Amino acid sequence: MPRYRLDIEYDGTAYAGWQRQDGPATIQGAIEQAIKGFCGETITLRGAGRTDAGVHATGQVAHLDLQKAWRDDTVRDAINAHLEMAGEAVTILAARAVPDDFDARFSAIGRQYLYRILNRRAPAALEKNRVWVVQRKLDAQAMHAAAQVLVGRHDFTTFRSQQCQAASPVRTLDRLDVVRRGDEIEIRTAARSFLHNQVRSMVGTIKRVGEGAWTMDDVRAALEATDRAACGSVAPPYGLYLTGVDYPEI
Amino acid sequence: MPRYRLDIEYDGTAYAGWQRQDGPATIQGAIEQAIKGFCGETITLRGAGRTDAGVHATGQVAHLDLQKAWRDDTVRDAINAHLEMAGEAVTILAARAVPDDFDARFSAIGRQYLYRILNRRAPAALEKNRVWVVQRKLDAQAMHAAAQVLVGRHDFTTFRSQQCQAASPVRTLDRLDVVRRGDEIEIRTAARSFLHNQVRSMVGTIKRVGEGAWTMDDVRAALEATDRAACGSVAPPYGLYLTGVDYPEI
Repeated sequence: MPRYRLDIEYDGTAYAGWQRQDGPATIQGAIEQAIKGFCGETITLRGAGRTDAGVHATGQVAHLDLQKAWRDDTVRDAINAHLEMAGEAVTILAARAVPDDFDARFSAIGRQYLYRILNRRAPAALEKNRVWVVQRKLDAQAMHAAAQVLVGRHDFTTFRSQQCQAASPVRTLDRLDVVRRGDEIEIRTAARSFLHNQVRSMVGTIKRVGEGAWTMDDVRAALEATDRAACGSVAPPYGLYLTGVDYPEI
Repeated sequence: MPRYRLDIEYDGTAYAGWQRQDGPATIQGAIEQAIKGFCGETITLRGAGRTDAGVHATGQVAHLDLQKAWRDDTVRDAINAHLEMAGEAVTILAARAVPDDFDARFSAIGRQYLYRILNRRAPAALEKNRVWVVQRKLDAQAMHAAAQVLVGRHDFTTFRSQQCQAASPVRTLDRLDVVRRGDEIEIRTAARSFLHNQVRSMVGTIKRVGEGAWTMDDVRAALEATDRAACGSVAPPYGLYLTGVDYPEI
């Protein structure tokens, strides 16, 4: 039974998130439907990360098993044709056959996210639903400095949703970099895995530092509190992008 | 009678272009309506360039006259509030009082455009309606080299729409640069002014060079033919952005 890896880009605006639900449109549901349209098979797609409603991806990864083997490019192009026909804001960047033990979620050894803040007075026109517009001028250097408090191995209870189902709140954050490019502030982060809402909770907190309301010590105290109520705030979903998932060389 | 300059960003997807029309939604119409909402005045907005349906802007410029004087920031924020209420994909980046002899169109001494090609097999999901997706691999260096044939003062009859109303087909092209950034090809161009459809006609033609169908000599022959029928093809509007307009120091 051939297994395929899909690399996926999507605009999450119109979707109730990655995970299939009864009723609302989801990314997983859209791709499963397109696969059924292409080869008639009803499959379950397994994604590396369950992005929330409104969150985007330029590098989501998923896997699926088909009864029949197809050329990699055929899988990509045929799914894309059905996604386009259905008017979905989802596209398959690449498809390739992988060994049976490849699991998009459990084989992953790293995940990267980008969070985009548009820091200006004017609302977003071209980037509406794709950035968080913050009108007050942010100090990106102060945000970057404070962000380094969160890098490393910590109990991230403060920075996880109360709905988070992970067994442990301990994670190792490899990177949390804040860079200004003109009106835009880019926050890039990487870890083996993240807790639910962790990136948005960290971004909402370091944004407080950027506007001068919090200091680096406040961020440290929030982390050490291991208390969800200590979190600065949670950034909105539409500035967040899953940009990549890493796997061991196969 | 105070005159204001507006710097404007828009997503042209849902609009029948810049210029006000009876019926279809236009950028000019949306802003005029927002101004009426803010101060009750019915004005005519004068833009630096009349972008076509589907064309975007990050740096359009326009001017208007009001009966009453307002603070610059109030003009910007009040128009934006009304644009947002109306759900328009248009935003005022800046507003400022200018001398009475400032004319967004006739004072302009330079205009810049960006054309974005997404060069990959997969359709655009995040950048849908914002890039031209070209599936065949393009040689950006060959495109750049051929583009240099068009730089300078020429009769651009081959590269203008038959609806173009300019008195003369002669223009001086200051720049036509083609750069690849990963999957994306950016084409940046600048001139004092452009003919109708000139940028899209030049991009459609040098794209033929990128795919190997045309040579630099074919581009030169097309230019020298001064015949609209000699144009390679016209790139679609949705990859085009008016990025800036230059004025003398005032």
